[in-house]
Amino acid sequence: MSVLIKGGLVVTSTGSYTADVYVEGDKIKQIGTNLEVKADEVVAAAGKYVLPGAIDPHTHLAMPFMGTYSQDDFESGTIAAACGGVTSVVDFDLQAKGESLLEAIERKKAIALGKAVIDFSFHPAVTDPRPEVIDELKKAIEEYGTPSFKVFMVYDFRVDDYTMIRLLEETNKYGGLVQVHAENVYMIQRMNEIFAEEGNLSPWYHAKSRANIAEEEAIERAGKMVEMTGSRIYIVHLSSLEGLRKVKKFRDRGIDVFAETCPQYLTLTEERYKEPDWNGAKYVMSPPLRSQNSLDELWRGLRGGDLQTVATDHCPFSFKGRKDMNGKDDYKVIPNGAPGIETLLMLLHTEGVVRGRITKERMVDVLSTGTARMFGLAEKGEVIVGKDADIVVFDPEQKFTITQSRLHMNVDYTPWEGWEMTGMPSVVYSRGKRVAEWSGDRMKFVGEIGRGKFVKREPFEGF
Amino acid sequence: MSVLIKGGLVVTSTGSYTADVYVEGDKIKQIGTNLEVKADEVVAAAGKYVLPGAIDPHTHLAMPFMGTYSQDDFESGTIAAACGGVTSVVDFDLQAKGESLLEAIERKKAIALGKAVIDFSFHPAVTDPRPEVIDELKKAIEEYGTPSFKVFMVYDFRVDDYTMIRLLEETNKYGGLVQVHAENVYMIQRMNEIFAEEGNLSPWYHAKSRANIAEEEAIERAGKMVEMTGSRIYIVHLSSLEGLRKVKKFRDRGIDVFAETCPQYLTLTEERYKEPDWNGAKYVMSPPLRSQNSLDELWRGLRGGDLQTVATDHCPFSFKGRKDMNGKDDYKVIPNGAPGIETLLMLLHTEGVVRGRITKERMVDVLSTGTARMFGLAEKGEVIVGKDADIVVFDPEQKFTITQSRLHMNVDYTPWEGWEMTGMPSVVYSRGKRVAEWSGDRMKFVGEIGRGKFVKREPFEGF
Amino acid sequence: MSVLIKGGLVVTSTGSYTADVYVEGDKIKQIGTNLEVKADEVVAAAGKYVLPGAIDPHTHLAMPFMGTYSQDDFESGTIAAACGGVTSVVDFDLQAKGESLLEAIERKKAIALGKAVIDFSFHPAVTDPRPEVIDELKKAIEEYGTPSFKVFMVYDFRVDDYTMIRLLEETNKYGGLVQVHAENVYMIQRMNEIFAEEGNLSPWYHAKSRANIAEEEAIERAGKMVEMTGSRIYIVHLSSLEGLRKVKKFRDRGIDVFAETCPQYLTLTEERYKEPDWNGAKYVMSPPLRSQNSLDELWRGLRGGDLQTVATDHCPFSFKGRKDMNGKDDYKVIPNGAPGIETLLMLLHTEGVVRGRITKERMVDVLSTGTARMFGLAEKGEVIVGKDADIVVFDPEQKFTITQSRLHMNVDYTPWEGWEMTGMPSVVYSRGKRVAEWSGDRMKFVGEIGRGKFVKREPFEGF
Amino acid sequence: MSVLIKGGLVVTSTGSYTADVYVEGDKIKQIGTNLEVKADEVVAAAGKYVLPGAIDPHTHLAMPFMGTYSQDDFESGTIAAACGGVTSVVDFDLQAKGESLLEAIERKKAIALGKAVIDFSFHPAVTDPRPEVIDELKKAIEEYGTPSFKVFMVYDFRVDDYTMIRLLEETNKYGGLVQVHAENVYMIQRMNEIFAEEGNLSPWYHAKSRANIAEEEAIERAGKMVEMTGSRIYIVHLSSLEGLRKVKKFRDRGIDVFAETCPQYLTLTEERYKEPDWNGAKYVMSPPLRSQNSLDELWRGLRGGDLQTVATDHCPFSFKGRKDMNGKDDYKVIPNGAPGIETLLMLLHTEGVVRGRITKERMVDVLSTGTARMFGLAEKGEVIVGKDADIVVFDPEQKFTITQSRLHMNVDYTPWEGWEMTGMPSVVYSRGKRVAEWSGDRMKFVGEIGRGKFVKREPFEGF
Repeated sequence: MSVLIKGGLVVTSTGSYTADVYVEGDKIKQIGTNLEVKADEVVAAAGKYVLPGAIDPHTHLAMPFMGTYSQDDFESGTIAAACGGVTSVVDFDLQAKGESLLEAIERKKAIALGKAVIDFSFHPAVTDPRPEVIDELKKAIEEYGTPSFKVFMVYDFRVDDYTMIRLLEETNKYGGLVQVHAENVYMIQRMNEIFAEEGNLSPWYHAKSRANIAEEEAIERAGKMVEMTGSRIYIVHLSSLEGLRKVKKFRDRGIDVFAETCPQYLTLTEERYKEPDWNGAKYVMSPPLRSQNSLDELWRGLRGGDLQTVATDHCPFSFKGRKDMNGKDDYKVIPNGAPGIETLLMLLHTEGVVRGRITKERMVDVLSTGTARMFGLAEKGEVIVGKDADIVVFDPEQKFTITQSRLHMNVDYTPWEGWEMTGMPSVVYSRGKRVAEWSGDRMKFVGEIGRGKFVKREPFEGF
Repeated sequence: MSVLIKGGLVVTSTGSYTADVYVEGDKIKQIGTNLEVKADEVVAAAGKYVLPGAIDPHTHLAMPFMGTYSQDDFESGTIAAACGGVTSVVDFDLQAKGESLLEAIERKKAIALGKAVIDFSFHPAVTDPRPEVIDELKKAIEEYGTPSFKVFMVYDFRVDDYTMIRLLEETNKYGGLVQVHAENVYMIQRMNEIFAEEGNLSPWYHAKSRANIAEEEAIERAGKMVEMTGSRIYIVHLSSLEGLRKVKKFRDRGIDVFAETCPQYLTLTEERYKEPDWNGAKYVMSPPLRSQNSLDELWRGLRGGDLQTVATDHCPFSFKGRKDMNGKDDYKVIPNGAPGIETLLMLLHTEGVVRGRITKERMVDVLSTGTARMFGLAEKGEVIVGKDADIVVFDPEQKFTITQSRLHMNVDYTPWEGWEMTGMPSVVYSRGKRVAEWSGDRMKFVGEIGRGKFVKREPFEGF
Repeated sequence: MSVLIKGGLVVTSTGSYTADVYVEGDKIKQIGTNLEVKADEVVAAAGKYVLPGAIDPHTHLAMPFMGTYSQDDFESGTIAAACGGVTSVVDFDLQAKGESLLEAIERKKAIALGKAVIDFSFHPAVTDPRPEVIDELKKAIEEYGTPSFKVFMVYDFRVDDYTMIRLLEETNKYGGLVQVHAENVYMIQRMNEIFAEEGNLSPWYHAKSRANIAEEEAIERAGKMVEMTGSRIYIVHLSSLEGLRKVKKFRDRGIDVFAETCPQYLTLTEERYKEPDWNGAKYVMSPPLRSQNSLDELWRGLRGGDLQTVATDHCPFSFKGRKDMNGKDDYKVIPNGAPGIETLLMLLHTEGVVRGRITKERMVDVLSTGTARMFGLAEKGEVIVGKDADIVVFDPEQKFTITQSRLHMNVDYTPWEGWEMTGMPSVVYSRGKRVAEWSGDRMKFVGEIGRGKFVKREPFEGF
Repeated sequence: MSVLIKGGLVVTSTGSYTADVYVEGDKIKQIGTNLEVKADEVVAAAGKYVLPGAIDPHTHLAMPFMGTYSQDDFESGTIAAACGGVTSVVDFDLQAKGESLLEAIERKKAIALGKAVIDFSFHPAVTDPRPEVIDELKKAIEEYGTPSFKVFMVYDFRVDDYTMIRLLEETNKYGGLVQVHAENVYMIQRMNEIFAEEGNLSPWYHAKSRANIAEEEAIERAGKMVEMTGSRIYIVHLSSLEGLRKVKKFRDRGIDVFAETCPQYLTLTEERYKEPDWNGAKYVMSPPLRSQNSLDELWRGLRGGDLQTVATDHCPFSFKGRKDMNGKDDYKVIPNGAPGIETLLMLLHTEGVVRGRITKERMVDVLSTGTARMFGLAEKGEVIVGKDADIVVFDPEQKFTITQSRLHMNVDYTPWEGWEMTGMPSVVYSRGKRVAEWSGDRMKFVGEIGRGKFVKREPFEGF
């Protein structure tokens, strides 16, 4: 099976150039000017971008949480991903109490295999840091190909500072990377109490209870542990300008505090929590949406290189049936999370590139090339000879109005209902095989259930 | 004329991969796995790096200064460059008093054409900012292809803050970039007086008279003018940690203060000024060499992305005959400058990559890819299909001891005499033509005098 | 002549206590609990504050400026001062071109003597820094008792950085203090041009042309020269939060950048420039009024100790006849300045103490005690045994509505027309002699023209 | 009983002046020039300073700790204090597990009464923050006169962030002040483990295990909770430059993070831990001694106003018998603490004032006036009419060589053995009664056991 993509503008992190791209089997075989080669499938890409497929390094598929499950499994979730131009996901693999990390990887792998339509990997999330779990880190990095590990500073399954220090030390020896959900749990606990005493229990108070300062403090503390151990860390879903400022200060001092943000923090503000009819519950996620100031500052951080990646934190719960399961009278029991895996690339292009906040080259870096480097996806992230042919032929002029009914995620709403997009995939390839394509007024899945494989990742090599 | 470079490791800013590179005429035509193509010249590159040629955006060839001339002209200077793996230079073109900027460009072009062995461009240096000179900026950017302009905050030909503001405003309209030599002239004037009163006139006092604080203050001031005008600036030859800290603070606030440093500031310290027999005069340059702290911090800035480029500030004056012309008894009249165009790549590789301070990918970015983007060298800076075939096949294991006699610069010393290098070019191509190659124990020039052409550059597009 | 002030609350920088204060001749002789002493004059002060008289270290009396004179001379100006509770002024003494500094002091002394009703001193303002003027500094400090020197970074009579460095060096040797009007002249020049091109010439553009960044840059530069010389500096009329931030950063690093602000920056905002009927001209002063953010931040700086003093910059020009002399069509030629010497204490008390922004103890420090220490007024600034009996018996409950007609300054408006004050002097003493007192609905001057004497000040001893 | 102190230089926070001070009973009755009053006791103080007695707000008398007791009880401890010019102590009152705060105050009061020779108060230390303990805070502040509360972020009796937040909130309502021992317990725990694994158990590793970063992180976190709650905090025994920098940053933003340091951090460095014969154990205290850089920076912080007070953290354990009880082979079980209550004033004067690091006025502020304001000791801290006559007549020229045998603390060593002091008390008064005096070659206690009384303190009023 071979594909020839002719005359597109290949977009890289550092520039763009017109060329033909020739794919053979899973791999990109040749790039050239006017390639004279025959192919089973030829795509006329003049006027279009040839992008590496986006990588979503922060998804929660089929995850048990707050008394229910995130609604997308590896089938529906990766179909939606593919339709949005995402060709790899790295999902979280939460260790159960008493479980070994390595068992958790195998358990989760079994859940994904046979379902996923694009390639995937996992970040084990350490929730039960027994000494023998610490001992498993080396193996997870070197043998299992999962060199990144999530820890939480909030929730019941959070770790304390001691455990964080130990994880930073141990992972550092073998090229591992610790990812952290950074919020100060005690601040939030106290704010929750105060709002409960006041009878303030609507979604708006979800946002107020997880104030920017809770994120800011936790990032500072995590960064200090990085400094102490000479390691590095990756802040997931950074949301506030105060948090970003802390990240910058550490980086200014040469301390490797990396950070990711998400489309929701780049496009939506806390005003959403005030929507009538309890609609604000749709945006209940942690950390919450912030102010316009934070939003603007995150774009600047993305442009200037202080944020390395954009991920979705995809974790959908239907408004009817899930969001309202228990939480109508108390924001604290509304399942936290929102759908986003399918709208990642279109939002970055429309809100970022078209509006002039970042270049298309920077978009490729934060969605693909930088993400692949951060997480050791050695075969992914660039349209370059020898890499996996995970390619999006992207039409920068194609219009699309986001509507839940035209999307593929297994959930009953989208936070961006009605938003007008400019720029959509024309065709999406996963390892040389067409998985999705533009079809009239929406994307259509044309791939094969279960073709996605588990990808072993490489240790972190440094930025 | 065609060349096939087989099986090398193509190094880009974002990663490295093994591929064949096929060049036809001036251009890179194809990159692929096991390319089946015939070529006039085949280079076996297994085990070697395939790098974009380095770009030196800060050279002073054939420049009148301090009562003499920098000793390399466009022939000797670009031969040395080519032998070092540098395939483009952007030289300064100092406007004479009363001269038009555009005339200055034509005048300088005439000096370079017929001599240069690699491609070149100019940064006009504005020294006489009459209103009609301000009016020429648009034409220089849009028609002459010279979108970057140097100004000095020191020396007789310095500009005041008002002129800087005007240049920032005007260049900003058309995609121009102002480059600044940032030192506070009054601080230096006063320190010079104090040392003169004390009878302290040896080269050591050259360094002391241009204290870090003079650079720091000037960068802050320049940055404030960038902030005021919503423009951007490029600090040349940044040397001190205090200066770098200012750069970081501006960038943290989203203000585009870019910066370059030089191999001398990354490898040598002010201790050199204490060398016996007036040897310190060899290192008399402005700004001067700094402390080890600054040196270390510059490497961190380079790694972390706060410094975008490395350039040489190549401006050689022989120790015998030039350095000692007037200055034996007074550091103030020693011609400022040192040779460096030939040793740029080897020093970055040995001191940076081999010592683990930066990755080879980062080296490519600060020597080539980032430099080309910064200065609008659209056809240069990457080994990518369609670009000029300015390529260095680089042997990362090749040893070389730096010795003046084995170098090609027209000067009687090198600051790095006796330094052991690891990693040297095997072959250097300029637009598809071999210009230099490793030959036994040194590089040999094999190119053609005068083949280098003037390159029109593109306006700045943003990072 | 003796006075006994009975049972008042003596307010000091560090606390308040109830006591009797006994004055004999010029001096405070005893402080005690229930003093059994006879006095020519007994003041029942129960329920009142006993404050040291305020010191205004920034006045422009009888000063030629912008084609006219500031309207208050030493008679009308110091009468107004006394009525407001100000018992000492330190006025600026601008060196004329070609004039010696010491001659300037004598010249100005002659202007004040026989007129001033309270004690006074001068800050020589260096405008023509010839080497022989630098040589006079020692004498001015040690013999003439004028250890503080003003320089301007703007206006025609500004000094360059070199001169500032020299002044800092020389004054530092003898305990002198340099005061600086910190604004970047080139930024303002350029903004003026832009507004002129746009036809924007109303008072609002006075404020816009002297943007915060001009103050911020100049403070940073001045501070850097302090750092270079190991000296100290005093920023006059600091107005912006950005400027204050710079001051804090220097002080955090142990570099002595002191600063003063003025009631106008603490109580009025730039919105004033929008008042109809060209009324904004009343507030044309340099630096201009700023935003509410700056106002709030200045109060915090005052409370936290980053601002050491409050002064008035009293420099009145009548709205009719002076402000509108030339400037109706161009803000640039409106005489800069506003009246304020009489309203200093009442505004600080009402807006500061009554509103809870600072304590009454802090008010005493920034109006009297700290000011006396900063400027070497050894006999002033505290209600302490042995000091000059410059005392304000202050009724913290007395109401007063500010109205031009009830004030004593020689000008036709006040910026605070109609403001309701809480807290006014009951009696004001200058060296043991009653000079002003509350009389029905306003203050009444009861002193003696010409009793004020020139006070020799001590060198700076450090904070 | 009356005392007349004639002709001394009364030193205040803001200046110094010559006057007579007349004391009647417990109180200062009059201050005047040449007072004509009879007194039972007349002290000729010409050439001497009249200082308010020092206040030591950080002592551990009779405190159970690490398996033993701090060796000074309220008799020996306050005798030593008085001999050193300290006339008030505020001791810590550690709540026992299960105990009520108010009971703890009564319990501790019983321990001190009848023994103390100078006045005293307590800071309750909250170690068991049950909800009913939180409820006691109001009463402790308003009725018991103990408005300051200590919490620990380390040790078994530490509180978590939630409790800190609650304490900040509750104390803030009533004018209380939370004092915090700020070190990150987890960082220390991990460093302890690493050193144990390495077999590094000598006193030097005590210092290394409590690295600066542990203090820095804890201060940042505590400050963030202050910011969240709009409260204020007081950092005890601040020791590191990194910690001080954090304090400055909060204060720059108007957040009330106050701080104390101690003579040991101002005069000794970590080099002490390397003394032979296990002598380093003498300096085992928490936080540990730091580098010269920190020492220098603390003096600058003291001078510049970022540190408000100096206290001793007096907590003596004899080298023989206590320090070596269990800890010879493991620094972790050496009782933490050192003697210092007697040497506070002499060290501040000699190392601070005589060496020109701070003025004598600043010394008075950080030892007395500022301390009294911080902790609501309304009758203490100034030589002012109406205050308690806690006065030190101090001879600034008197020499004294610190030797354990000439001191009064109940311990077998002093960290300053052999140090030459310049400046010692001549006479010390506590509420009008002579308690100590210079006698030949040392201080002699001449007071009365048990005369010291418990002082109710006022709520915090703000700085």
